[in-house]
Amino acid sequence: MKQYIFGIDLGGTTVKLGLFTVEGELLDKWEIPTRTEHAGEEILPDIAAALKAKLEERGISVSQVAGVGLGVPGAVLEDRFVKPCVNLQGWGGDAAGALSALCGCPVKVVNDANAAALGEMWLGGGKGYSNVVFVTLGTGVGGGIIVDGQIVSGLGGAGGEVGHSLLVLDGQPCTCGRSGCWEAYASATALIRQGKEAAASHPDSLLNRYPALTGRDVFDAADDGDAAAKAVLDRYYDYVAAGITNLVNILSPEMVLIGGGISRQGERLLAPIRRYVAANCFGGTERPQPVIQAAQLGNEAGIIGAAAL
Amino acid sequence: MKQYIFGIDLGGTTVKLGLFTVEGELLDKWEIPTRTEHAGEEILPDIAAALKAKLEERGISVSQVAGVGLGVPGAVLEDRFVKPCVNLQGWGGDAAGALSALCGCPVKVVNDANAAALGEMWLGGGKGYSNVVFVTLGTGVGGGIIVDGQIVSGLGGAGGEVGHSLLVLDGQPCTCGRSGCWEAYASATALIRQGKEAAASHPDSLLNRYPALTGRDVFDAADDGDAAAKAVLDRYYDYVAAGITNLVNILSPEMVLIGGGISRQGERLLAPIRRYVAANCFGGTERPQPVIQAAQLGNEAGIIGAAAL
Repeated sequence: MKQYIFGIDLGGTTVKLGLFTVEGELLDKWEIPTRTEHAGEEILPDIAAALKAKLEERGISVSQVAGVGLGVPGAVLEDRFVKPCVNLQGWGGDAAGALSALCGCPVKVVNDANAAALGEMWLGGGKGYSNVVFVTLGTGVGGGIIVDGQIVSGLGGAGGEVGHSLLVLDGQPCTCGRSGCWEAYASATALIRQGKEAAASHPDSLLNRYPALTGRDVFDAADDGDAAAKAVLDRYYDYVAAGITNLVNILSPEMVLIGGGISRQGERLLAPIRRYVAANCFGGTERPQPVIQAAQLGNEAGIIGAAAL
Repeated sequence: MKQYIFGIDLGGTTVKLGLFTVEGELLDKWEIPTRTEHAGEEILPDIAAALKAKLEERGISVSQVAGVGLGVPGAVLEDRFVKPCVNLQGWGGDAAGALSALCGCPVKVVNDANAAALGEMWLGGGKGYSNVVFVTLGTGVGGGIIVDGQIVSGLGGAGGEVGHSLLVLDGQPCTCGRSGCWEAYASATALIRQGKEAAASHPDSLLNRYPALTGRDVFDAADDGDAAAKAVLDRYYDYVAAGITNLVNILSPEMVLIGGGISRQGERLLAPIRRYVAANCFGGTERPQPVIQAAQLGNEAGIIGAAAL
């Protein structure tokens, strides 16, 4: 009987792996390093070996495995083809076919942000909802859009790049080469830049006590009563919320789920976002408001979402 | 046998009506005035009377009518309930139930921008595509988003308000009360404002020859070699294309279909938009580009889309 699923989250430095029951119970999770050398030719053999070792360790036969879900940091076509991944030395190709041949069970591949969104839908904050916008505030701003329970992967698997919608035409330079993207204002990286700028222009600010300022430090300085840090955060909340308002106006989802490192700030991030969205969305407070919540699965969203495939 | 459909486009001043075969052939179209007095209490009786008169004129019995589709200028819930319409003196309610009771056949209701999108999908520029973003550049900037062949109407029927995604945080005031919306830069109204500003700062410009400048006049002045008008248009194309690029990054549709009065400019509008999107979308020219075309049905898109329901 097919009673097990593997969910795998392939990242630039580590591969996270999870063994699940078909009902979604996480039985085991572990990591292996990602070997990106030689255009990543060891990646899939390493993963196949890790899966085999786990099956042996637990006395499970391959015939008991319903399938393997693999989340990758790049665009994916037809649940199998991966476009060359910048973070993996250009690794790509028919990952589903290759891994399936190596491990002897069906494999589906998904973009990692979309995997996280699917994970949150299956077992996390989005459980019970079918129209959700998932936004991650981390090094960048990523996203996954779910309409009627399905990921909108779009032409070329390139949908959900919400971080690269504009916030300010010709504004701050973005890592994508363009200027003014939401990511350039609302990522953790952007918050750090905003904090450093405030530190430089306010020599008395507590922000200057951190030799290598992090996003967390800006929140800590604000907690300690620092006016410059508070002003940075107030503006940062507006940036985050303005981009979310755009997505609400375009898609009117039932729920906006916010993940990534910044989402650990919980209500002090969520409350101002909810206020801004209600005040600024088209139709204002008279229209039904989406539920705006933090994601719940943290780092495990990727393996859970891959398993959900 | 059910062989006829009515498609109705309820506007603020006129009601457009169309009689179709179930295959989509338009047999007849006509208009009646929209009587908005008394919170629009005459609207549905007027429509029902117009439908009955048409059936009598053509010798068609009500039992031969498969259904009636009604497009309305406001948010719609569950294909029947209309939220109070600003352009119709607050008219709203269970329009499908009320009209069905009056005319004796099934009625479905849809937002008018979504109806136009459906019409273009059924018989117009979007035929054969199932993931389309439809954008109208007119008095405002409206839209309809189609994913897997279905309109994304969203929570409260409020999806597709693409004109109220931001282009410039805290930018130009918008009719919605907010600042910096795409509509405030890319609508025909915005183009006229941009043309008037250029006329005022360039006294020698041909733009000054028009007592009441229209969007069309800006194009005509540019055709006549006016440098100020050309500069306005170049910037206007960027505004339009930047908003389309946002939608491409978020949804990665197969096709972007551009309707509304401005779309009559055809290739001279579309060519610079295609160039901008290819250069600025996430992944640039290396990712598959959406087809970017003008809508084909013009004013009839609404009645055709309502019939398509």
